[in-house]
Amino acid sequence: MTIGHRTWAIPEGWLPPRAGKRGRALESHEAACVLNAGDADAHLEFEIFFRDRDPAGPYHVTVPARRTLHLRFDDLEDPEPVPRGVEFASVIRSDVPVVIQHTRLDARDAEISLMTTLAFSAAGEGA
Amino acid sequence: MTIGHRTWAIPEGWLPPRAGKRGRALESHEAACVLNAGDADAHLEFEIFFRDRDPAGPYHVTVPARRTLHLRFDDLEDPEPVPRGVEFASVIRSDVPVVIQHTRLDARDAEISLMTTLAFSAAGEGA
Amino acid sequence: MTIGHRTWAIPEGWLPPRAGKRGRALESHEAACVLNAGDADAHLEFEIFFRDRDPAGPYHVTVPARRTLHLRFDDLEDPEPVPRGVEFASVIRSDVPVVIQHTRLDARDAEISLMTTLAFSAAGEGA
Amino acid sequence: MTIGHRTWAIPEGWLPPRAGKRGRALESHEAACVLNAGDADAHLEFEIFFRDRDPAGPYHVTVPARRTLHLRFDDLEDPEPVPRGVEFASVIRSDVPVVIQHTRLDARDAEISLMTTLAFSAAGEGA
Repeated sequence: MTIGHRTWAIPEGWLPPRAGKRGRALESHEAACVLNAGDADAHLEFEIFFRDRDPAGPYHVTVPARRTLHLRFDDLEDPEPVPRGVEFASVIRSDVPVVIQHTRLDARDAEISLMTTLAFSAAGEGA
Repeated sequence: MTIGHRTWAIPEGWLPPRAGKRGRALESHEAACVLNAGDADAHLEFEIFFRDRDPAGPYHVTVPARRTLHLRFDDLEDPEPVPRGVEFASVIRSDVPVVIQHTRLDARDAEISLMTTLAFSAAGEGA
Repeated sequence: MTIGHRTWAIPEGWLPPRAGKRGRALESHEAACVLNAGDADAHLEFEIFFRDRDPAGPYHVTVPARRTLHLRFDDLEDPEPVPRGVEFASVIRSDVPVVIQHTRLDARDAEISLMTTLAFSAAGEGA
Repeated sequence: MTIGHRTWAIPEGWLPPRAGKRGRALESHEAACVLNAGDADAHLEFEIFFRDRDPAGPYHVTVPARRTLHLRFDDLEDPEPVPRGVEFASVIRSDVPVVIQHTRLDARDAEISLMTTLAFSAAGEGA
């Protein structure tokens, strides 16, 4: 059984400068949590949009069948790392339906702060 | 009157290690807040997805007619507890329409941090 | 011009115990932010659902034409105050389309924590 | 390729009093993150709604083709600045489809707090 859509967008994106003083779980990060509840592997393409330059990507990511991947944007390396301290947005396309949620953990201060939302699913647009 | 859908998904899920030093209300938790506004009891099945193993479940939960249940994932015990410190996602199916919202309270630091979002409702997929 | 829906639901609800030590803007609260962008006054009915008792309400609230109201649940008094420290959920019905967003400010600790999400709009259910 | 809708609403809005003690990135702000993934520039009009006065605007904002703009409400100046310490809401109309996410960073305390949600998209209402 499949659940979700094939096209998603996350207008908000920002990687805080790396703090480096706490472990990976408590380090500032920006994540796209992808759920592939279906029986086929999902092949995703991320395109990253900026304020004043052409988009970057595509970045290729695979989420196996019946698995979830909490992808951190600072783990995207190819074709280029996502710059820090710069506002960005993303469009994600998959060859099978998936569900995507956006989460940020900000650890610039002594205390972490969290935010999350479902990504925008383009139901009527090739989804 | 009924309101909601029968199939929901929450791509983000993570149980922080148990802190143990504060009361239950201020302890780190991950919750699926379920509203059953209808006149029939809702029988839910939770399926939990992981990064690198087969899904767990189903977990059976009942939300009586015209009641709400703020289900904490760390209260799921049968068939197995949801592991801590591991990324997961969930799919929830109900036999009657419900509405589901996802909330996390993180109390790893001295100060709590909150995040919330509506879960994804699969309107066109058996919902 | 109208924008929105007539039926909304917020599965998550919880009023922290009153802190009382800071001003109203920094006091813990739970709010339903209602936007009425249309040219007719909106007459809303809130129904509050609980875990183990019958629902409370209806609570009657008016949002004038082309106005917004950030309604705090602790301001609901008639027919009964919303209890504190108890999990609840809400269904809101309006006679004209509105848009509703749910926000919590938690000030139990020294530092505030925020969370927000759009409410669930029942597009196909009398909306 | 286009993705998104032409009409959006954000019921929650509030600009904390300016703190002035930290840099721009850590200063309290309220933002509408706009993604224009299409091949044509997007011309947006913001209308700001209040509790007890007529709406302000329209504010005109352009987001170039294949770019994102994280618009801070405190940067809106013409026809009038958005008042601080006052609850507001907004409706955004664009001549081409865009996707909009609402984010607040509150830095009134020593530690920041974040919240985010997708804006409401009026799919069936001229979108």
